[in-house]
Amino acid sequence: MKIYADNAATTKMSQTAVEAMLPYLTECFGNPSSLYEAGQKAKEALETAREEIARIIHASPREIVFTSGGSEADNQAILSAAALGEKKGKRHIVSTAIEHHAVLHTLKKLEKQGFDVTLLPVHEDGIVRPEELKAALREDTCLVTVMYANNEIGTLQPIREIGELCKEKGIPFHTDAVQAVGHLSMDVERDGVTLLSASAHKFHGPKGVGFLYARKGFRLSNLIEGGAQERGKRAGTENVAGIVAMAAALKEAEANREATALRLTALRDRLIEGLAAIPHSALNGDAQKRLPGNVNFCFEGIEGESLLLLLDDRGICASSGSACTSGSLDPSHVLLAIGRKHDVAHGSLRLTLGEDATEEEVDYIIQTVTETVDRLRSFSPVWRDLCSGKSPFIL
Amino acid sequence: MKIYADNAATTKMSQTAVEAMLPYLTECFGNPSSLYEAGQKAKEALETAREEIARIIHASPREIVFTSGGSEADNQAILSAAALGEKKGKRHIVSTAIEHHAVLHTLKKLEKQGFDVTLLPVHEDGIVRPEELKAALREDTCLVTVMYANNEIGTLQPIREIGELCKEKGIPFHTDAVQAVGHLSMDVERDGVTLLSASAHKFHGPKGVGFLYARKGFRLSNLIEGGAQERGKRAGTENVAGIVAMAAALKEAEANREATALRLTALRDRLIEGLAAIPHSALNGDAQKRLPGNVNFCFEGIEGESLLLLLDDRGICASSGSACTSGSLDPSHVLLAIGRKHDVAHGSLRLTLGEDATEEEVDYIIQTVTETVDRLRSFSPVWRDLCSGKSPFIL
Repeated sequence: MKIYADNAATTKMSQTAVEAMLPYLTECFGNPSSLYEAGQKAKEALETAREEIARIIHASPREIVFTSGGSEADNQAILSAAALGEKKGKRHIVSTAIEHHAVLHTLKKLEKQGFDVTLLPVHEDGIVRPEELKAALREDTCLVTVMYANNEIGTLQPIREIGELCKEKGIPFHTDAVQAVGHLSMDVERDGVTLLSASAHKFHGPKGVGFLYARKGFRLSNLIEGGAQERGKRAGTENVAGIVAMAAALKEAEANREATALRLTALRDRLIEGLAAIPHSALNGDAQKRLPGNVNFCFEGIEGESLLLLLDDRGICASSGSACTSGSLDPSHVLLAIGRKHDVAHGSLRLTLGEDATEEEVDYIIQTVTETVDRLRSFSPVWRDLCSGKSPFIL
Repeated sequence: MKIYADNAATTKMSQTAVEAMLPYLTECFGNPSSLYEAGQKAKEALETAREEIARIIHASPREIVFTSGGSEADNQAILSAAALGEKKGKRHIVSTAIEHHAVLHTLKKLEKQGFDVTLLPVHEDGIVRPEELKAALREDTCLVTVMYANNEIGTLQPIREIGELCKEKGIPFHTDAVQAVGHLSMDVERDGVTLLSASAHKFHGPKGVGFLYARKGFRLSNLIEGGAQERGKRAGTENVAGIVAMAAALKEAEANREATALRLTALRDRLIEGLAAIPHSALNGDAQKRLPGNVNFCFEGIEGESLLLLLDDRGICASSGSACTSGSLDPSHVLLAIGRKHDVAHGSLRLTLGEDATEEEVDYIIQTVTETVDRLRSFSPVWRDLCSGKSPFIL
């Protein structure tokens, strides 16, 4: 059996998205900035894509800027809010300890420039508390940035409540919605969001394209300077084929969203139940307030990388956390933030189910993970120490 | 007849590039950062693409950073050199008046931050003189950035000489080679280049992908912060399909480069000769030291946009200059830099031939442009004033 259970890392492009893309790679290849018909056709496709995406997130087309992906959108959103803040002498930013590195590293850069960043802790359930966020707001807060859904443990943050708080105080609110767009209902009005980042390849669109929603009246700074594309806010010839494919993928995801979420939630809960039966295992993040397809577990006494490699041998693609940090040996900052100890955080497993996942696959995953954890423990000195009482069990 | 003669704006993807791309959109869609086989396959494709591109420009693979295109590469190159300069108290940059806006606007941003920018003039032939560049260098010069070939008038700059000068003085040298890569022989060693930007869609690769060459030992700053991709120098899941297609397109372009350049140069010269026969017309830029397929003319007494629209009706896709500024009513900064007056600069026509251009097409263009210019002049009050001696001819 071959099971791709790492849809938070990236997804396979849908057939619809591929078919939407192809004409814009070849016959309809004009530069949207060109006056002649071939250019104007590309321009129309671009604007239709913008309208479709705007409609789905309840925005207006003029509020959508196409980018090369979620990371670029995050960088541009945060740096823009910081630049506006700076003009008003406001140099304080509120965020959380479990943001994606595209957010955290941009905040680090701003700290070096003299900004003051408050990273709110999350509770054991992986969720930030609005009242704690409220308490962190200051007169000089120029931005609140909180992710919609966490990329490792899938926990959903109280975006609407945070949006209301920010609205009351007149503070721009950015949400990295890379894991949420295409999977959850998105409404920038309902959620009181000023800025929102998304990435196509997380919802069966192509890699290398995403978008930034910026509320009317919020003045974006340019991350990439140059030509007058994207109303002067993002230079460079537009990736027309990628953008058209992104819109097609999002439209398709939106049409199936509710049904998919119901199915995936049931499968997710089945998977959680199955893995929870492994001794000394623990689910990371709230059991209910999480993305429909996300399961993330810690297993005591094993090493995450070995588990992944053995699962790969048995046809299961999974990860220990964010793909973006797979080169790093540090334990996940998200797992540390929810209180896991270093040793345990190293033994984590993230399984993110795709729309076509089946009960049979879920059962195969449960069985295979159970056997593999058992096998790894059988020759783990750490596990022996735990069992012999030499070191205490944590989970 | 349908003739696409705007290959400097963008090119049609080659069949080879499309075929190279497709598998990475669908079956081989893994995230290159993932440990399992599907991810590692994507990683291998990425590294093979990097090796191929490096080989063609005579660089080492570790010197190539993939970006979302030429504009991003230009921005990152320039901001990186500025950041390094700043650390050493060097805040002077030398460039030219005819750079692409991705360079010029980035320099403007740096000026606001206190950098001193010298924009060298070009001569009437559209070429900067190395001795003038040499004279502009200062103790505190931290970057020289000169484009390889101009995007509007196609003129080739004395890159090798500038590279030598910069090497002597130990000043980083960036070249925006967006119009050159895939069309001219590229050798970062021969040219003494520290940084070089390229864009796939200018050589029959896809839009939305490009690369930045940065010489070993030169420390890039991040434009996009986040994950550890591209050895920590450019965050965001890699556009694997786009990158693979870019490498395939460049490999193909390189294999045919010399033969194509010979053919296109002959066609270009035929086109120049034909258009030069139009009264009160003038070629913009040097007649020989220009890109093989680039022709750029001014016609007195007509308005460029009308000319383009009428040519479009007759099946010819052309432009008045850079696609990136087509929304703007300002005359081209490049044409002004080579000494054209405002009025005349508005009547410019850029024709950039593709690899498959034929003599028959060139002759059709000559005939059609000649007739169209004539027709436009027949009802142009400006032209009447010129002919009646009310205002003087400039060309």
